[in-house]
Amino acid sequence: MAENILIVGAGAIGCFYGSLLARAGQRVSMVVRSDYEIAQAHGITVESILGHWNFKPEHIVKTARDYPEQAAYVVLCTKVTGEVNRVELIRDVVSSSTVIVLIQNGIDIEAEIAQAFPANLLISGLAFICATKTRPAYVEHSAYGRLAVGDYPQGISDATRAFAAMFDDSGIECITTDDVVTARWQKTVWNAPFNPISVLSNGLDTQTVVNTQETYLRKIMSEVAEIARALKHPLRDDVVDLNIESTRKMPPYKTSMLIDYQHGRTMETEAILGNAVRAGQAAAVNTPYLSSLYALMKLREAQIEHLKTTA
Amino acid sequence: MAENILIVGAGAIGCFYGSLLARAGQRVSMVVRSDYEIAQAHGITVESILGHWNFKPEHIVKTARDYPEQAAYVVLCTKVTGEVNRVELIRDVVSSSTVIVLIQNGIDIEAEIAQAFPANLLISGLAFICATKTRPAYVEHSAYGRLAVGDYPQGISDATRAFAAMFDDSGIECITTDDVVTARWQKTVWNAPFNPISVLSNGLDTQTVVNTQETYLRKIMSEVAEIARALKHPLRDDVVDLNIESTRKMPPYKTSMLIDYQHGRTMETEAILGNAVRAGQAAAVNTPYLSSLYALMKLREAQIEHLKTTA
Repeated sequence: MAENILIVGAGAIGCFYGSLLARAGQRVSMVVRSDYEIAQAHGITVESILGHWNFKPEHIVKTARDYPEQAAYVVLCTKVTGEVNRVELIRDVVSSSTVIVLIQNGIDIEAEIAQAFPANLLISGLAFICATKTRPAYVEHSAYGRLAVGDYPQGISDATRAFAAMFDDSGIECITTDDVVTARWQKTVWNAPFNPISVLSNGLDTQTVVNTQETYLRKIMSEVAEIARALKHPLRDDVVDLNIESTRKMPPYKTSMLIDYQHGRTMETEAILGNAVRAGQAAAVNTPYLSSLYALMKLREAQIEHLKTTA
Repeated sequence: MAENILIVGAGAIGCFYGSLLARAGQRVSMVVRSDYEIAQAHGITVESILGHWNFKPEHIVKTARDYPEQAAYVVLCTKVTGEVNRVELIRDVVSSSTVIVLIQNGIDIEAEIAQAFPANLLISGLAFICATKTRPAYVEHSAYGRLAVGDYPQGISDATRAFAAMFDDSGIECITTDDVVTARWQKTVWNAPFNPISVLSNGLDTQTVVNTQETYLRKIMSEVAEIARALKHPLRDDVVDLNIESTRKMPPYKTSMLIDYQHGRTMETEAILGNAVRAGQAAAVNTPYLSSLYALMKLREAQIEHLKTTA
C-alpha cells in the first residue's frame, strides 16, 4: 500500500531520497520554498550515478500547512542551523499517528523534535552520500548514498522497518540500527574533523589532509570517541583507525560544510561541532581539539558576517 | 664615533630601523635583493607616523659578500622561514669582532645563529611595530615601534647597550633586557594566537576576535605561559589578562602573518607556532590548543601550495 510521505526541505537530501521513495511507489509530496515555481513547472531532476530521472511530487506546497493530505511519514531534510525552526516547519502536518523522520546531520539534534512531539514515533536517520543541488530543483548525486535509520532514542519499530524497506530495490541501501545515537557519534568521528578543516584550510581535499596531518586528525577523532564512551555510546576500539584508513581510500571528497561555505550558506557548525563540544562538557570530557575547531569556525562565521555588512 | 652597520633583509623592519640608525649618524649599509635597482636609484623611502624621510644607505649590495667594509654590527631583519638560510646570508661579513643582531619574530630562533658563530656576541631583538613595505623600497610605518634587545642567551653587554643607545632621540624607544628569551616568550603570548587566527579566519580583525572568543584566546595564551614556566622563563602571573586587556584597547590590528598571507609570501608558521609546539614537547607540556593552530596553519600552507601547482 502506498503511503503518504511529505518531505520537508528541498535540498539535495530531500530531493534525492524523496525521488527514490516516489520511484518505489510511495505517494511523495514536497515542501519547496525557494524553487517552488520551477519545481511546479518541471518537477525535480535527479542526475545520479544510478541514472537520470525526473521526479514529479504528488503535491508541491510552499509550506506544510498547504499539504492537503494526512501524512504517514513527515521527513525533515533541512539543514540543522539556527536559521531553521524545524518544529514550526512541520507542526501543521504532525497528527497523533504521524511518524517523524529526520535525515539530518549532527549530534543531539533529535531532542528538540522529541520534546515538541512527545507522542509521535521519531525516526532518526543518517545519510552517507555525496549529493549537491547544483541549480534550482536539480540535484547531482555523485557518490555513496547509504541511509541508516533507527528509533530515537533507541530500538527499531515496525514503522522504521517499513520505512527502510521502501528503499529496497532502489539501488540505495537503508539499514536499520537499534542504537541510532551511537551511529550519530560514529558518523561524527569523521564529520567533526573533516567538515571544519575543509573550510578552515580554504578547501583542501580530504586526501591531502589525511596524508599531511594524520596525528592531528587522530586527536580530534579520539575526543569524539571519548565523549561517546562517556555518554554510554561506546564506539569500536578501532574507530579512529578505520576512519583514517577509509579516508585514505576515498576519492578526494568535498564536505557538506565546504559546499555550504562556498555557496554562502549557513554552515552546520552548531549541529556538528557545537553540540559535540557541549556534549563533552556535559560528560566532563576535556575537548581542546574540538573546542579549537569550534572557536575557529565561529570566528570564520564572524568574518563572513563582517564581509556581508561591509559589502 | 659612527659604526659600520650592515642590515641584512630589506623588508619593512630592516628598512625602518636601518633608516633610524642612519639618521642617528651611523654608517648604515643594506643588503637588498629584489629592490636593488630602485633602492640604488632612489634610496629607501619611509613614510612614518614620526615623519617622512628618504634613506640613502652608505652601500647597497646584493649580497653580504659585496659589502666592502668591516661591519661592527650585522643586523638580520629577514623573515624566519625555511626559505631563508640566515647563516649563509651573513657568513661572509662575520669576523671575529662582529656583533650579530637579530630583529626577528619567533621562539628559539637564536640557537642556529649561535651555533654557527659561537665566538660572536649575539644580540636578540624584538620589534613591537606595525610597518609594511607597500611597494619596492617604500615602507609605511603606521603604529608602535619599540625595540627590546638583550644578549643571547642572557645578559646585557656593553655592545648591546651601545646598540640600544643609537636609537636615543630617534623617536623610537629601544630597551635592553637581561633575559631576552623570556621577552620572546612574552611576545609569543600574543603572537601565537593572533597571527594564525587572523589567517585562519580569513582576515578577521583583532578586536572582533577578542570580543567573540576570549575564552579560546586565554586557553592558547595559557599554554604559551605554561611552556615558558616549564623552561624556567616564567612570565608574569597576569600575562594573559594583560594581553587580553591590551588587545581590547588596541586599534584593530593586521598581523604580520596576515599581511604575508595576503601578499602570497611564506608565513612564519614554524618560527612562531612550530617552535613553540616543539618547545612544549621538549618541556613535556601538553599543548592541544597550540598544536591545533599549528596543524591548521600547515594545512592552510598545503592548500596555498596546491593552488600554486594547479594555477
